[in-house]
Amino acid sequence: MIGATSLAEGRRLIAEASRDLAGAGFAPATSGNFSMRVGPTRAAITASGLDKATLSETEVIEIDLRGRATSGEGRPSAETTLHTQLYRRSPEVGAVLHTHSRVQTVASRVLPTEGRIVLAGYELLKALTGITTHDTSLVVPVFPNTQELEVLARQVEAWLDAGHVTYGYLIDGHGMYTWARDMPEARRHLEALDFLLACELSARGFAP
Amino acid sequence: MIGATSLAEGRRLIAEASRDLAGAGFAPATSGNFSMRVGPTRAAITASGLDKATLSETEVIEIDLRGRATSGEGRPSAETTLHTQLYRRSPEVGAVLHTHSRVQTVASRVLPTEGRIVLAGYELLKALTGITTHDTSLVVPVFPNTQELEVLARQVEAWLDAGHVTYGYLIDGHGMYTWARDMPEARRHLEALDFLLACELSARGFAP
Amino acid sequence: MIGATSLAEGRRLIAEASRDLAGAGFAPATSGNFSMRVGPTRAAITASGLDKATLSETEVIEIDLRGRATSGEGRPSAETTLHTQLYRRSPEVGAVLHTHSRVQTVASRVLPTEGRIVLAGYELLKALTGITTHDTSLVVPVFPNTQELEVLARQVEAWLDAGHVTYGYLIDGHGMYTWARDMPEARRHLEALDFLLACELSARGFAP
Amino acid sequence: MIGATSLAEGRRLIAEASRDLAGAGFAPATSGNFSMRVGPTRAAITASGLDKATLSETEVIEIDLRGRATSGEGRPSAETTLHTQLYRRSPEVGAVLHTHSRVQTVASRVLPTEGRIVLAGYELLKALTGITTHDTSLVVPVFPNTQELEVLARQVEAWLDAGHVTYGYLIDGHGMYTWARDMPEARRHLEALDFLLACELSARGFAP
Repeated sequence: MIGATSLAEGRRLIAEASRDLAGAGFAPATSGNFSMRVGPTRAAITASGLDKATLSETEVIEIDLRGRATSGEGRPSAETTLHTQLYRRSPEVGAVLHTHSRVQTVASRVLPTEGRIVLAGYELLKALTGITTHDTSLVVPVFPNTQELEVLARQVEAWLDAGHVTYGYLIDGHGMYTWARDMPEARRHLEALDFLLACELSARGFAP
Repeated sequence: MIGATSLAEGRRLIAEASRDLAGAGFAPATSGNFSMRVGPTRAAITASGLDKATLSETEVIEIDLRGRATSGEGRPSAETTLHTQLYRRSPEVGAVLHTHSRVQTVASRVLPTEGRIVLAGYELLKALTGITTHDTSLVVPVFPNTQELEVLARQVEAWLDAGHVTYGYLIDGHGMYTWARDMPEARRHLEALDFLLACELSARGFAP
Repeated sequence: MIGATSLAEGRRLIAEASRDLAGAGFAPATSGNFSMRVGPTRAAITASGLDKATLSETEVIEIDLRGRATSGEGRPSAETTLHTQLYRRSPEVGAVLHTHSRVQTVASRVLPTEGRIVLAGYELLKALTGITTHDTSLVVPVFPNTQELEVLARQVEAWLDAGHVTYGYLIDGHGMYTWARDMPEARRHLEALDFLLACELSARGFAP
Repeated sequence: MIGATSLAEGRRLIAEASRDLAGAGFAPATSGNFSMRVGPTRAAITASGLDKATLSETEVIEIDLRGRATSGEGRPSAETTLHTQLYRRSPEVGAVLHTHSRVQTVASRVLPTEGRIVLAGYELLKALTGITTHDTSLVVPVFPNTQELEVLARQVEAWLDAGHVTYGYLIDGHGMYTWARDMPEARRHLEALDFLLACELSARGFAP
């Protein structure tokens, strides 16, 4: 299985990513959650409501792919269902990052046309696995925010079912989900998408 | 009593918050002051005029709820009255943070309509204790600045007496007061409100 | 004499300020220079052309108040004359900071009206020694840039002779000079003026 | 030979520059590459596809001036040809930095007129070796991006053959190449050019 790692290694990589990403402004005010696949039917995910800048390995819990805790202390966030949806969909998904940077929040509100942001012509698109030229367009969907996560999950499912090449999606006024085969790739995808959204904001006269 | 801590623990948490928040741009040029409740009729607060980025525990003084120093070296800031007002009003107030970030200063000058800024539709509103959905509006009042702190205190009192749900207020061209039951919650409220004000600035074409 | 310190202590404080200020973006690409008075007719100043982020005490040289090196290795910058001018003018000047932040550079180009920027109504004006209310206006003069430093010095002299309350001045497309009685006060003045210029930029739709 | 250093020293300086520059946002999502001349017909360059923020000396490989690896593990980036072009052209080129800051990316898209950005009247132009007054204009060319690097190399060659004073060039939607006699000078040129592009963005109402 691509991307599956041991629970211990998953906890280590998730806690490290949590601290690094919170330090870089991706998880303000205890927001955000980060996960990895740790087996065919298991994932590890940050527990709900904690300060992500100081997260330790013991604050990462094991869950099944319906989002129920199977070991570890603390409870999974309600948003866990948006992580497990991706793990269930494809064995190639090994890591999922949900972040709330200011760039993502503002971009989701001011950049979309008909629920989509188009990123085109940037060299940094090549940081996304499978993109080999800047001379392309990537569509990032922006879904309406809702507290009914199953509604959101169905919209994501429909988008993915339609066969779009997708590295991440935004939720309006909320943040972004990004994923990849493993944690380094997911962090690279997150860094690249956030950079490209910031460039789009800046080029249109908004401050990232 | 919710939020009351020992004087020693209060000094430790205040000095730590002072250094962290100053390092993050919340207390430029020795501005800002930070306090905690340390008993039914006592609080601890940073002494006036010091560099908040290097503050030590011995630079936190004990005061009564009229703002008079009861132990410790240094003198309380004139703004202490805006802290003690909140502690006197409610035993549930355990920590008060007064900050001067650039975001707060600029937001107070360019965003208000009739002395109010409305924050609506942001997922990060849920970082404020008691808010459970993004689909809400939070009003942040912006009071005119004055060197007569009793005038300011009466305006705050009137606003709170009117029963508004309030996590903090801005003073025009000056900064913000935020409070909560304890220090971690107050820091989360501060971080969330500053983030949301920054998003509003950015979405309206101002640089945070 | 107010503000005079020993040469050894001056070197220590200047090197420390240099590293801190360069780390905060005040001295990009080896620009900037920092000095202190170390006696009635002596000052200490950073040597020319060095990386300010890694400056050591041995890279601070002693000069007389005509700008000639009296001890230490390296040569004083051509801009030394703008430091010594201030020390000669008043025994109350104990430290001078010349910085090149992006805020100062952009503010000098887009904010002035007839060579002046007015900062008014900000609480942080009170970080400047002698200002006790936000309800005031501070004029920051912006002089045209020139490589003939004596021309610039005469303009500064004329401005100060006219009796303006002045904590610093800008040079167009170049940077700022700030001064005070000692190093902590000079650093506070610099931090406050830079913050206020950044707020002005932001409030007028420019990114600091 | 000006600027030539030993392979060991080149590896050390390149790895140090890589970590520092990535930490400062010049190499997001594994982008960027950095090189030094280590002999008349040899250079050292960062291997392709690595996280530049954690680069070690063993991840710097030796190449000849056609871009073929001669020692070290990993492979050179396709963009190596834009480095070796500069080393072949002049023995005075001792270091080349290719970076992707947000400032460079946005500036390349919104600032050019007919493929050129003019930087004029800034004091910090004097951080570029050979410029002795702010009262000058520096033209930074912006070439169209292409995945055919030989096409890009020919455009660079033609620009340099035309005798322009050039410290670096931008590629549209991509980033910048800067060079100098040695690593400290190249880093100073990079820092100065990025600062000046940021000032231009800011002065025209774009957020850097």
